[in-house]
Amino acid sequence: MKAVVFEDGRMDYREVPLPALARGEALVQVNLAGICATDLEMLKGYRPFSGILGHEFVGVVAQAPEYPAWAGRRVVGEINITCGTCSACRAGRSNHCERRTTLGISERQGVFAEFVAMPFVNLHRVPDTVPDEVAVFTEPLAAALEILEHAPVRPSDRVLVVGAGRLGQLVAQALGLTGCDLRVVARYPHQAHLLQARGIPCLAESEVPQKKFNLVVEASGSPEGFRLAQQAIRPRGTLVLKSTMAGEMPLNLSPLVVDEITLIGSRCGPFKPALRILEEGRIDPRPLIAARYPLSQALAAFDEAARPGVLKVLLDPGG
Amino acid sequence: MKAVVFEDGRMDYREVPLPALARGEALVQVNLAGICATDLEMLKGYRPFSGILGHEFVGVVAQAPEYPAWAGRRVVGEINITCGTCSACRAGRSNHCERRTTLGISERQGVFAEFVAMPFVNLHRVPDTVPDEVAVFTEPLAAALEILEHAPVRPSDRVLVVGAGRLGQLVAQALGLTGCDLRVVARYPHQAHLLQARGIPCLAESEVPQKKFNLVVEASGSPEGFRLAQQAIRPRGTLVLKSTMAGEMPLNLSPLVVDEITLIGSRCGPFKPALRILEEGRIDPRPLIAARYPLSQALAAFDEAARPGVLKVLLDPGG
Repeated sequence: MKAVVFEDGRMDYREVPLPALARGEALVQVNLAGICATDLEMLKGYRPFSGILGHEFVGVVAQAPEYPAWAGRRVVGEINITCGTCSACRAGRSNHCERRTTLGISERQGVFAEFVAMPFVNLHRVPDTVPDEVAVFTEPLAAALEILEHAPVRPSDRVLVVGAGRLGQLVAQALGLTGCDLRVVARYPHQAHLLQARGIPCLAESEVPQKKFNLVVEASGSPEGFRLAQQAIRPRGTLVLKSTMAGEMPLNLSPLVVDEITLIGSRCGPFKPALRILEEGRIDPRPLIAARYPLSQALAAFDEAARPGVLKVLLDPGG
Repeated sequence: MKAVVFEDGRMDYREVPLPALARGEALVQVNLAGICATDLEMLKGYRPFSGILGHEFVGVVAQAPEYPAWAGRRVVGEINITCGTCSACRAGRSNHCERRTTLGISERQGVFAEFVAMPFVNLHRVPDTVPDEVAVFTEPLAAALEILEHAPVRPSDRVLVVGAGRLGQLVAQALGLTGCDLRVVARYPHQAHLLQARGIPCLAESEVPQKKFNLVVEASGSPEGFRLAQQAIRPRGTLVLKSTMAGEMPLNLSPLVVDEITLIGSRCGPFKPALRILEEGRIDPRPLIAARYPLSQALAAFDEAARPGVLKVLLDPGG
């Protein structure tokens, strides 16, 4: 099969063997995959990874040796492959499994390929009414919804999302479901327009009031975004970090103590509610699609996705 | 009266005018005051402050023009002087009053003096059975108890306190009240001995297991302490920052996101439960007293307090 392989610091589109299935795994033919900021960070050496990149996908089960009923089902898949037996798994925190591997991120082949091997327990059936170009957003929407699992949001809350990129757009729509008083810091006009079209007001960086928001979500993945978030948060407020940034940055933590801020790191989220919300049409991610490339043009797709302000770039193995 | 004044980057013991009382204020004669890490940080320029230092004290009401019944009462006092009318005060977060001043820290004369002017609303009567050298710990014990206001601790929790200095000792005793599985990282043998004498096990820095504690309290106020705390915290755990550190330090926040850590900044705490716990004798801070100096020897007392590993140094204006 064809796949996008990251090795020795460079990315390559090439022929690789079809994945062998372990016990409890299905072979999934990838219909569509999404490029996320983490993929771009991987290229910068965010993690010591070598292999097929990618973790956002929708596909069809091509082989299901142990559970033949799954064959032909359209599916999305949770990206952490967990052991089910370590203390984290047994305590219900399987996303933090001590022996986990992660699709295209850590010791596990990813989805920028024609096929991927996936444990059945990771698969979720996609409702027929949800098209591929919507279902492919299940993983990032789940990550956005995870914020609400950590920090319940009330209609009386003043909430700021810093960043209106791929993740920020979904975070803003997810938080918008709560009826909170929401503002988004958007750097690019087209990002602001998308949000305003959904009734979500945007601010320029210079317009953000200081210490006024009791919940701030940092979704820009930049040190400037973090500083802006720190300035916007109200004493005793909650600052959610959604982005992984490679490397260290100089930070002054004293304001967190003086203002008694709670900082919450937030990563992967629940697929079930994400799929349900997509099925209900309460969030429509399609306006976020900036471009769609055949898998063979993955290098050009990555270049496009890395351009400042560009939203979701999709890869189509059948394209 | 005599006072310890910080001005133009240096500290001086000298004669100053007796404080004038504003409406709603009492004149308190200071019996005993404590030197805290924040006082030492003030000398390094942690805040742009000029005036009498100090915020931990116990004293006797010397003048109470509006409420004469208070005259002669032994008292401790909350350190934030608040307006009572701003949105933070009205929302019950008066410690975050937008117009607050803070004893010896921000725009308000402190307690390293023979007398201090204090709003009546800040004063708490000290029970007769609580001696001065215990009552003087009310403020730091309240700050330690504040952790339990932010992050309730269960007996099943594995808890680590990083740092066994002035604050770490009180934090460890406060957390020990909960019956949690508690360990303390102590750098100095005499700090470890004090805790072990209270049945609290200590670890050396090199013995701290990685990712095992679901609550970690950083009470060392050092970048190394913060890194140790980050390494010790379990995925989805809570890291409480108790210390303000002047200046920036290089930090990698990605582990907070990947492991979905909650970081809580925590500052001043509730005086009422602190006084009650001291009255009940459930926490005895007296073994923490390293030295007691007359106020006139405040400079020597500060030198002593700044020596690595030294616990509480007290200043006695009557000594």
